[in-house]
Amino acid sequence: MIRLDELVQKLGGELVGDGSVCVDRVATLDQAGKGDLSFLANPKYLSQVKSSGAAAVIVGKSARDALTDRPRIVADDPYLYFAHVARHFNPPASVLGGVHLLAAVSCSVPSSVAIDAGAVVEEGVVLGEGVHIGAGAYVGRGAHVGANTRIAPRATVYAGCVLGQDCIIHAGAVIGSDGFGFARQRDGAWVKIPQVGRVVIGNDVEIGANTTIDRGALDDTVIGNGVKIDNQIQIGHNVRIGDFTAIAGCVGIAGSTRIGARCMIGGQAGIIGHLTIADDVVISAGTLVTKSIRQPGVYTANLPVQGHADWVKNFAHLRHLDTLVDRIRALEQRLEEREQS
Amino acid sequence: MIRLDELVQKLGGELVGDGSVCVDRVATLDQAGKGDLSFLANPKYLSQVKSSGAAAVIVGKSARDALTDRPRIVADDPYLYFAHVARHFNPPASVLGGVHLLAAVSCSVPSSVAIDAGAVVEEGVVLGEGVHIGAGAYVGRGAHVGANTRIAPRATVYAGCVLGQDCIIHAGAVIGSDGFGFARQRDGAWVKIPQVGRVVIGNDVEIGANTTIDRGALDDTVIGNGVKIDNQIQIGHNVRIGDFTAIAGCVGIAGSTRIGARCMIGGQAGIIGHLTIADDVVISAGTLVTKSIRQPGVYTANLPVQGHADWVKNFAHLRHLDTLVDRIRALEQRLEEREQS
Amino acid sequence: MIRLDELVQKLGGELVGDGSVCVDRVATLDQAGKGDLSFLANPKYLSQVKSSGAAAVIVGKSARDALTDRPRIVADDPYLYFAHVARHFNPPASVLGGVHLLAAVSCSVPSSVAIDAGAVVEEGVVLGEGVHIGAGAYVGRGAHVGANTRIAPRATVYAGCVLGQDCIIHAGAVIGSDGFGFARQRDGAWVKIPQVGRVVIGNDVEIGANTTIDRGALDDTVIGNGVKIDNQIQIGHNVRIGDFTAIAGCVGIAGSTRIGARCMIGGQAGIIGHLTIADDVVISAGTLVTKSIRQPGVYTANLPVQGHADWVKNFAHLRHLDTLVDRIRALEQRLEEREQS
Repeated sequence: MIRLDELVQKLGGELVGDGSVCVDRVATLDQAGKGDLSFLANPKYLSQVKSSGAAAVIVGKSARDALTDRPRIVADDPYLYFAHVARHFNPPASVLGGVHLLAAVSCSVPSSVAIDAGAVVEEGVVLGEGVHIGAGAYVGRGAHVGANTRIAPRATVYAGCVLGQDCIIHAGAVIGSDGFGFARQRDGAWVKIPQVGRVVIGNDVEIGANTTIDRGALDDTVIGNGVKIDNQIQIGHNVRIGDFTAIAGCVGIAGSTRIGARCMIGGQAGIIGHLTIADDVVISAGTLVTKSIRQPGVYTANLPVQGHADWVKNFAHLRHLDTLVDRIRALEQRLEEREQS
Repeated sequence: MIRLDELVQKLGGELVGDGSVCVDRVATLDQAGKGDLSFLANPKYLSQVKSSGAAAVIVGKSARDALTDRPRIVADDPYLYFAHVARHFNPPASVLGGVHLLAAVSCSVPSSVAIDAGAVVEEGVVLGEGVHIGAGAYVGRGAHVGANTRIAPRATVYAGCVLGQDCIIHAGAVIGSDGFGFARQRDGAWVKIPQVGRVVIGNDVEIGANTTIDRGALDDTVIGNGVKIDNQIQIGHNVRIGDFTAIAGCVGIAGSTRIGARCMIGGQAGIIGHLTIADDVVISAGTLVTKSIRQPGVYTANLPVQGHADWVKNFAHLRHLDTLVDRIRALEQRLEEREQS
Repeated sequence: MIRLDELVQKLGGELVGDGSVCVDRVATLDQAGKGDLSFLANPKYLSQVKSSGAAAVIVGKSARDALTDRPRIVADDPYLYFAHVARHFNPPASVLGGVHLLAAVSCSVPSSVAIDAGAVVEEGVVLGEGVHIGAGAYVGRGAHVGANTRIAPRATVYAGCVLGQDCIIHAGAVIGSDGFGFARQRDGAWVKIPQVGRVVIGNDVEIGANTTIDRGALDDTVIGNGVKIDNQIQIGHNVRIGDFTAIAGCVGIAGSTRIGARCMIGGQAGIIGHLTIADDVVISAGTLVTKSIRQPGVYTANLPVQGHADWVKNFAHLRHLDTLVDRIRALEQRLEEREQS
């Protein structure tokens, strides 16, 4: 429970209306009730503010005076402000140091570190202060886990990998499995190339559930600071990802590709191997990138969905686009000839 | 081992031929031998019935008299009938209550519940009768697991999530990991928004191996009754899925999208966030949905595969389709002018 | 540490230059330093050889004499040669037999087998010599694991599945979960069809992190010898994959599809169910295969990525391609008529 004027004192912004109003939760406009602070991130939902049961609302400057009857906090970026309020009401659970009897730990453990039941931590692992290793998680020999990093249940960190501070590794994520590296014999059989690089992850990185990041073949796979990686993502060996890049679910990034800083990669996008993607590139959902991208900007390649019958009618022509272009060229020539005659 | 006439008495359908024939297994037409009951779901495989070694066959009404020499059960829907027979021969393993010595359980456990080695069940978890928690599975604080639900080895249920009755959660599935919610600062850094909603799953839901379902940001992520979700699927925060919808492997559904009842979503399809999909919508494999779908029907957007050389020839034109349309328009005008002159 | 002349004696190839030079590591050209052996697999990087700090280089015949100042090994296939050298320097860790106190093992275990903490191995499992079952891995009742196969931490093998010799199953992989098999009732509800087949995997197979392979419905799902499967892949029930086929990350293969030998399937490709893919087929990244492929060759269907504005301009026409073709046809007729008049 906090008064609006106290909140503004703490987090900034301009208070309009009754500062003695108390809030103790954040909620969406349509779900909010008594004691809830809501937010208007997109002006098109302005009408929802009126019907909302929220005790108060965070708004942008353009909506400052549109709402006359409700206390509000005016912020430069209402969504960012909401994020900070939400963090105020929901701080991360504090970590109670201690090793569960059913954990198997073979390294030294600072007293501030918690290791839960079923976790296995191998020899030579280096654990920072305040680390939390969840139930059944695995940390392989010689890995480093930075201070305050939380590894969720059933996540796996292979030997030798390095995680920075304040990271969150979600359940089922696998860090440092072998890259897909084979040389092919003449008879078609594959000879495995030992994958001896590491995965090196910066600070404040979040890695989603069941995401996989392969260790490097010879050099390392490197994830920069502040990178956010959603669920079900595959990152191949020797990929390098720049600071603050965010990657949505189901993306695949093939080996040795380098991605710049502050990129945003949409869900189910794919990037083939050995490419370079510049800083500040945005890739739309479902887009397969098969060439390097050297300039910032938004890049897209996906198909308009249609009713199936329309799709059958239209998309069959894709197989014959070249013939179609030939027909247009022929028409142009024939018309040219007639016009000149 | 059961006689055909007993089977018909139990499951319905019309028996044609010798009812004393015994069967004790179901098998495909080409693999079936003595004692096997097979089925003909698609009339185009009728010829296979003749060569099959099956002791008897389940057929539809149209194939009732096409086979004169073999006992058969005539059913409205042979595939559905086969499903019921298969369930008769292969009932789910019964659950033997008991908690393994190497499980770490911090809640009360009904005597009908089995918890296997390496499983971790936290405080405040509520377990229904007949629940089976597999080896190394994790159920977080305060989660509810409905009666007879089976959680396979290595599945993870985060704190506070709710599973209905008679569900199956396959190995490696992750229920309730954090949604991908961040607000962006001006410098590009991301501020994590605490994900405080739950995942609420109805009755008779099956969730495939390594599928991930994120918890809601503020409200819940909701999966209806009878929903079937295949492997490797990602379901974002605050998604809502209606009853009996089935989703094939590798699908991604982004945050806050609402999907109706009885939909069927093909493999590797994707649906971006904040959309509404009506009831009874079928989405073809590999189709990316980027707009809401308001009417039932089949929707498709995927590409015809070609030999690579043909593809190169044809698909290069996609980058210049607009120019192509301009050329057609120009041709039409020039021809118009000549025709009018 | 090995002398170049000893290496050539062991692995073949032609030594050019000082055979007494010693190497103890492999490295890429740009990272290599003293004591490192590097390789030139692609002649276009020839210039890098000059600037490299590598003590020696593996080259192909065409580059034999292009480098006058550095010891080199000339090999038919430099990349394959490099693979063998890398294996010489990085042999697989030897397995120290023994069962960890916190493992739950209910079958007999040869003394050469290692089972790590948190692993669960059920009754009736048959383990070959030298098997390594990683921390927290699960092997279900009656499964077979061939000699020298390594199961990484947190991998799951369901009951009854069969793994050949010398396989590697990476962390989080799930072998033998139920296939996605349901019959639909008239009211839309799904009746589960028991999945009673197995997964049968040949020798020398590698299966990537968090990959899932479903057990067969009635018959088995079969993976041939020497098949290499990357991370995050979904293989449906009753799929059959021929020897030495390699599948890159994020691929989905739907039920009952048969894939030939020595195929290569690019990342994020998909193959729908009940198809047949011939031997020696190469499928490009991101390609959805919706028809059987009967001839060897390279097959592709993906879209050229564009700047978003260009994409909007060009791809909108895809919805009207059929109308476009009609307009071209009309133009042809009108011109025909004029030319004949």
